[in-house]
Amino acid sequence: MALIVQKYGGTSVGSPERIRDVARRIKRWKMQGHQLVVVVSAMSGETNRLIALAKEVSPNPHPRELDVMVSTGEQVTIALLAMALQDLGIKAKSYTGGQVKVLTDSTFTKARILSIDEHNIRSDLEDDTVVIVAGFQGVDEQGNITTLGRGGSDTSAVALAAALKADECQIYTDVDGVYTTDPRVVPEARKLDRITFEEMLEMASLGSKVLQIRSVEFAGKYKVKLRVLSSFEEEGKETSGTLITVEEDTTMEQPIISGIAFNRDEAKLTVLGVPDRPGIASQILGPISEANIDVDMIIQNVGHDGTTDFSFTVNRGEYARALKILEEQVKPHIGARAIEGDNKICKVSAVGVGMRSHPGVASKMFRVLAEEGINIQMISTSEIKISVVVDEKYLELAVRVLHQAFGLDKAPA
Amino acid sequence: MALIVQKYGGTSVGSPERIRDVARRIKRWKMQGHQLVVVVSAMSGETNRLIALAKEVSPNPHPRELDVMVSTGEQVTIALLAMALQDLGIKAKSYTGGQVKVLTDSTFTKARILSIDEHNIRSDLEDDTVVIVAGFQGVDEQGNITTLGRGGSDTSAVALAAALKADECQIYTDVDGVYTTDPRVVPEARKLDRITFEEMLEMASLGSKVLQIRSVEFAGKYKVKLRVLSSFEEEGKETSGTLITVEEDTTMEQPIISGIAFNRDEAKLTVLGVPDRPGIASQILGPISEANIDVDMIIQNVGHDGTTDFSFTVNRGEYARALKILEEQVKPHIGARAIEGDNKICKVSAVGVGMRSHPGVASKMFRVLAEEGINIQMISTSEIKISVVVDEKYLELAVRVLHQAFGLDKAPA
Repeated sequence: MALIVQKYGGTSVGSPERIRDVARRIKRWKMQGHQLVVVVSAMSGETNRLIALAKEVSPNPHPRELDVMVSTGEQVTIALLAMALQDLGIKAKSYTGGQVKVLTDSTFTKARILSIDEHNIRSDLEDDTVVIVAGFQGVDEQGNITTLGRGGSDTSAVALAAALKADECQIYTDVDGVYTTDPRVVPEARKLDRITFEEMLEMASLGSKVLQIRSVEFAGKYKVKLRVLSSFEEEGKETSGTLITVEEDTTMEQPIISGIAFNRDEAKLTVLGVPDRPGIASQILGPISEANIDVDMIIQNVGHDGTTDFSFTVNRGEYARALKILEEQVKPHIGARAIEGDNKICKVSAVGVGMRSHPGVASKMFRVLAEEGINIQMISTSEIKISVVVDEKYLELAVRVLHQAFGLDKAPA
Repeated sequence: MALIVQKYGGTSVGSPERIRDVARRIKRWKMQGHQLVVVVSAMSGETNRLIALAKEVSPNPHPRELDVMVSTGEQVTIALLAMALQDLGIKAKSYTGGQVKVLTDSTFTKARILSIDEHNIRSDLEDDTVVIVAGFQGVDEQGNITTLGRGGSDTSAVALAAALKADECQIYTDVDGVYTTDPRVVPEARKLDRITFEEMLEMASLGSKVLQIRSVEFAGKYKVKLRVLSSFEEEGKETSGTLITVEEDTTMEQPIISGIAFNRDEAKLTVLGVPDRPGIASQILGPISEANIDVDMIIQNVGHDGTTDFSFTVNRGEYARALKILEEQVKPHIGARAIEGDNKICKVSAVGVGMRSHPGVASKMFRVLAEEGINIQMISTSEIKISVVVDEKYLELAVRVLHQAFGLDKAPA
């Protein structure tokens, strides 16, 4: 018998029929003797409907009141799921964030969880009851309703699993796990049986949007065993999804690379002929950050003749604004020679904890790309990741050849 | 400066536009220097939408979970109204029933209010903030969400007014007050400036559905000054509605009759030739009550030759069921001669505290009806009310002639 926290997202509970499906799935786990805490999101579309209604009344809704309103989305789902379980003869009880209680700070619309009172949940579990908790929400010290921000239901589930010391936290979604790369780009992409938190973080932040990054960080920090599963698989045909663990897999030959991630939503900017002196990076990026533009990769090479070139990437939607800031505020101020930019680029990354102990991954990656005539524009590396920026038109080709070169299309030995 | 509790029903907050209207109305009261606590219902249609959704998932939803779900309707409205007020530069803060907290018993879907914690509300009011409270809902001792049943928002408002010792409780609705009778039947019907609680109870229970009966009882018990007003009147053209008070109006000549109420939704049943012996009434009504059929008027006249006739009225929708019970269970059991029934009847009542001190009201009522050739089938009286059952086809005529005969179409002296 295990204590399992399950989380079902908006699509999984998107209709009365889907909610009854989820209830049947929960019943099967329950009948195996497990204790279950189930976290749910609002039915798909409901949060957007509520926000639209708020904006009809107030163009810029007060954050406290927006949270009061938006939190009703999950409150409806918990009640519906509890009803559906009771109809199947399973004892079930719903809890809002405030009822649990999930204590957060008072940062309305993007609150952080401070603590979870597991007292009531424990006594329900001992009473053989399935506990249904509204994701995405909590209360602050004063009893005000707060929400955790978009995707916060994953975080609610992981936080509950940590507080309850659950054996596993299962995130049900519309895909059946984490893949070596996007199957729409590489049909040979394989589902991974397991992946480390660090790898998952790199994969997620690079565009594999299976899990909210914040929940993965949280799970890593509190050593919660996290599993990604599909809620759309038929009874009897369920797979075991992908397990995200703290430990590297030492029971088998460690693959060098776990996956190829990519992001086509990037643009690159370069400040040419920058005086090579201390403080120049902050003079360039200060105005960008003040304009609330997130910067991704940052590259500065060694200079010569007293000047250097400084490059960075931003979200493609911010490209025009960033370019304008560099031209108008940065270039005259620091005396740079010219500003260049390109919004037809993409980023391709090889991710894997195995590269720590395997030298030569970078050179293999560069060679494979060179053999296809793909020019590398920027390079950035971390402990477990190598990212390159290439022309957008090479994205599919680059991902495909790297996926094959690192043997990801073959099952591990 | 007064402390005023206002309540706005579902139609008054039925759209973003209507919510902004209500916010402007509240602002006008606030600018006059009053302290305001505002109770709101769910937007019109929302409660029905939520119940329908619940029934799509579960044919017979668990009451606790139904309350969790249905209570979201008011939660959305409080947030929207608070936003709208903030946009007008008025400080406002929303409270769910649980946040106030409105403590109730645990009878889900029709809970009773036990107490109200006014602490937070008081400190907000002193901070010049308009307090917005979700009507219709509370929490029990264990923190479970409860609802008060349909129309419970009126009761929430009165209970808050009682707890806060408010100067007045204003119920905003789609009519501008209590009328001497239904203006659709008698165009000369006048709005009453004031009415006593007892009269209002008789009017309400007889079919003048302006206020929920339970809230009027509550207001009478706790001596809350209750006022019915329209939320649809334009700025500058507002009337003062109808004040419902404990005291009879002694400042002016007391009218004998305050209003003519009627109910066409009735049916009459008679058990003929009942043995005239103790216990017979309960033998007749016992099976009716066990079938959950509400009985309204009950009439038994003195018998002769050892038998009597026993009549009562029920809601018209229960007529067939009641008739069947009498025929199958009651008649053979008590040895009655026959069962008769009529579902084409109506009840017309004259209501007024003035009749206590004015003899002759009943005989005047009967004479007026006789002059029009209207046969009276049943008569029932209380301290402040005389009700007659007549053929349904005479309803409009009876109401009209009584309204005129008691001088209700003329303004009081």
